[in-house]
Amino acid sequence: MDLHIDGARLLRRLDELALIAPITGPNGERGNARLALTDEDRAGRDLVVSWMRDLGLDVSVDGIGNVIAVMTGHPGVAPVMTGSHIDTVATGGRFDGNLGVLAGLEVIESVIEAGIKLERPLAVGFFTDEEGARFAPDMLGSLVYAGGLGLEEALDIVSIDGARLGDELEKIGYQGGAPCPGPAPHAFVELHIEQGPVLEIEGFRLGAVTGVQGISWTRVTLSGQSNHAGTTPMQMRRDPAAAMIRMGAALQEIVADVGSPQVGTIGSIELKPNLINVVPARATFTVDVRHTDERTLRDVERRLRVEMERIAAEHGVELSTESLARFEPVVFDERVVSLVERAAIERDLSVMRLPSGAGHDAQMMARLCPTAMIFTPSRGGVSHNPAEHTDDDDLVAGCQVLADVMLALTVNAWMEE
Amino acid sequence: MDLHIDGARLLRRLDELALIAPITGPNGERGNARLALTDEDRAGRDLVVSWMRDLGLDVSVDGIGNVIAVMTGHPGVAPVMTGSHIDTVATGGRFDGNLGVLAGLEVIESVIEAGIKLERPLAVGFFTDEEGARFAPDMLGSLVYAGGLGLEEALDIVSIDGARLGDELEKIGYQGGAPCPGPAPHAFVELHIEQGPVLEIEGFRLGAVTGVQGISWTRVTLSGQSNHAGTTPMQMRRDPAAAMIRMGAALQEIVADVGSPQVGTIGSIELKPNLINVVPARATFTVDVRHTDERTLRDVERRLRVEMERIAAEHGVELSTESLARFEPVVFDERVVSLVERAAIERDLSVMRLPSGAGHDAQMMARLCPTAMIFTPSRGGVSHNPAEHTDDDDLVAGCQVLADVMLALTVNAWMEE
Repeated sequence: MDLHIDGARLLRRLDELALIAPITGPNGERGNARLALTDEDRAGRDLVVSWMRDLGLDVSVDGIGNVIAVMTGHPGVAPVMTGSHIDTVATGGRFDGNLGVLAGLEVIESVIEAGIKLERPLAVGFFTDEEGARFAPDMLGSLVYAGGLGLEEALDIVSIDGARLGDELEKIGYQGGAPCPGPAPHAFVELHIEQGPVLEIEGFRLGAVTGVQGISWTRVTLSGQSNHAGTTPMQMRRDPAAAMIRMGAALQEIVADVGSPQVGTIGSIELKPNLINVVPARATFTVDVRHTDERTLRDVERRLRVEMERIAAEHGVELSTESLARFEPVVFDERVVSLVERAAIERDLSVMRLPSGAGHDAQMMARLCPTAMIFTPSRGGVSHNPAEHTDDDDLVAGCQVLADVMLALTVNAWMEE
Repeated sequence: MDLHIDGARLLRRLDELALIAPITGPNGERGNARLALTDEDRAGRDLVVSWMRDLGLDVSVDGIGNVIAVMTGHPGVAPVMTGSHIDTVATGGRFDGNLGVLAGLEVIESVIEAGIKLERPLAVGFFTDEEGARFAPDMLGSLVYAGGLGLEEALDIVSIDGARLGDELEKIGYQGGAPCPGPAPHAFVELHIEQGPVLEIEGFRLGAVTGVQGISWTRVTLSGQSNHAGTTPMQMRRDPAAAMIRMGAALQEIVADVGSPQVGTIGSIELKPNLINVVPARATFTVDVRHTDERTLRDVERRLRVEMERIAAEHGVELSTESLARFEPVVFDERVVSLVERAAIERDLSVMRLPSGAGHDAQMMARLCPTAMIFTPSRGGVSHNPAEHTDDDDLVAGCQVLADVMLALTVNAWMEE
């Protein structure tokens, strides 16, 4: 079953979809702004659905607006599925999500053109509100598909602009009758840009994604005593900014000690009153730590907690923490990851195993069936930005490996490995 | 020359002045909002000037609005002068500045009442815009009086609300004809609340102020690369917040190494874009370091600079710094400091030598004549706040020692010590 996808056709479709709700970056880069369930999102959906119908696929829309197109001719047989999303953030690039959907379409069209008969149908879908930029949480559509969130609860979510999700879904005509949760595919594999710098810096064409990092987000508030920065001797201070600095240094030490793939970030800091000559009364900051292994992540959280309590006591400041998000790591199916790796090697494409630092629809689908992902390089690691870029060769290579993996998954042999 | 001041009269005047432009703190504390050269400031000035005139003093107003009242009868003899300011910050307390002016008035009234004949006249003044809360820089009036800033330049300063200083001065009727710079007094001594916690914590009734700390204010800007907090491995980051944390830790180490009275504060931090899951592109923060010794202060600045350059290089971030203020330390006259110390001891008041961490008009007057200050304790070190408090006993004790010191300064014997 040697199938060659049509790279030029994939690139044309990527270009055409990018014409809907275009935005321009500071250096003329072409990006998109298609926030979930807006008129722009509807226009994007309509275009992709028209392509699905042109191929004679069986298109269904479920109660949360996920759209899935399946090859006909295999009633009752679970498909090998791919897909991603076509909603973007407000300052989105052209590839994030869109690549995975249009590559899936390309794989199916190539199979149909080649007249290949499969034991299982292929399917491609796009999930509602993956970005979470308009309706929280992110990966909403795939979460509902996988049964992680009830449909009614999801429809009642209110957007950042005050609109109810269910109303917006109805307004754009994408509240369908297919059931939520949806049926489990035979297997799921998603092609996506990396959105990070690893493949580029390490010099690999493709990534075989082993899973998604667990995420722990905490907001830390330190309350001390506001004082005059000139008249208050150091030993008489209860300075929350000084304590925050030492906690940040402790985080850096813990992260360095655990080593890769542990990451830790302090991305947000607010001091009150935030004046040059006043010892602050309060410091609020966020801690983002991620690891692929749940036990390691818990250990990092515990070590940081111990350090923060010790430092708060030493500085005489009051410590309070609030968990803003906590997701356990997702481990993809080793058999599917191996298929990705081997398919790349057979196409003479250098490939590296790596975890995903960002969340993806595939992590929700992993609850339902054997799942993995394929990453293409992101220039400079840039994403959620019109400057987001992947070379054409890499886009096409990713699509070709997606095709090879999907075909391999239609034959049950992979399940025994 | 044993003179007893009238403590009750001092407290009454403090209460009466506090009725002009009163504000209330969260726990009902009484404070004041008399920003420089506003109608509120004028009302305060008018009241104090009426008291000066009631005592038959020779009241003069100079070109920048400083008001000085001198005892009559000693034409051509330089007075022993005291004074402070009656302008406040927007959230001011009742004692900051006001105490020094009204205590000076009380000393003079007591001398007049007691019929004491002095070799030199006494004088009390209040200087324009000490706080700098409306017109920068602070200690503006005394700076112009001492010749540190030209009158015309000062009159052209524009306030935070867009008004020209000269116009505002004229509007409230306090642009006078006395010359700037002003004549040098024989000696100057200022009574002020500490505005810090040292006297209270160390258990002393009074402070003999040895000088004013030198101040170095720097704004530091670190530019790095904004990145996804999940997908960007630690070793591929150029994280300005991480570099800022290490620079803050370096500052803490240097300050601890130098030891008291070195202080160092990071009071203001801004990250961009300041989001939980984004490695910041930029971190801006301020560094406030102060020491009483200029060589030590320079050494601290140099050591911090070396550390910041090393850390910036290690983190791959661009470092730029801007000096926002730099004042050399002021050392008060040892003879006047000793007089303060002895006067307190003779009144059975515990007294401690300490430097001032805040700026005061006395540091400008120190350019013109032998100068020192007397501090009273500030409860909890709180100042620039309606909760600012000094016990009545301490206010009265400070005024008594001010009287004793001023009288001693009228006799030339102190100059030989």
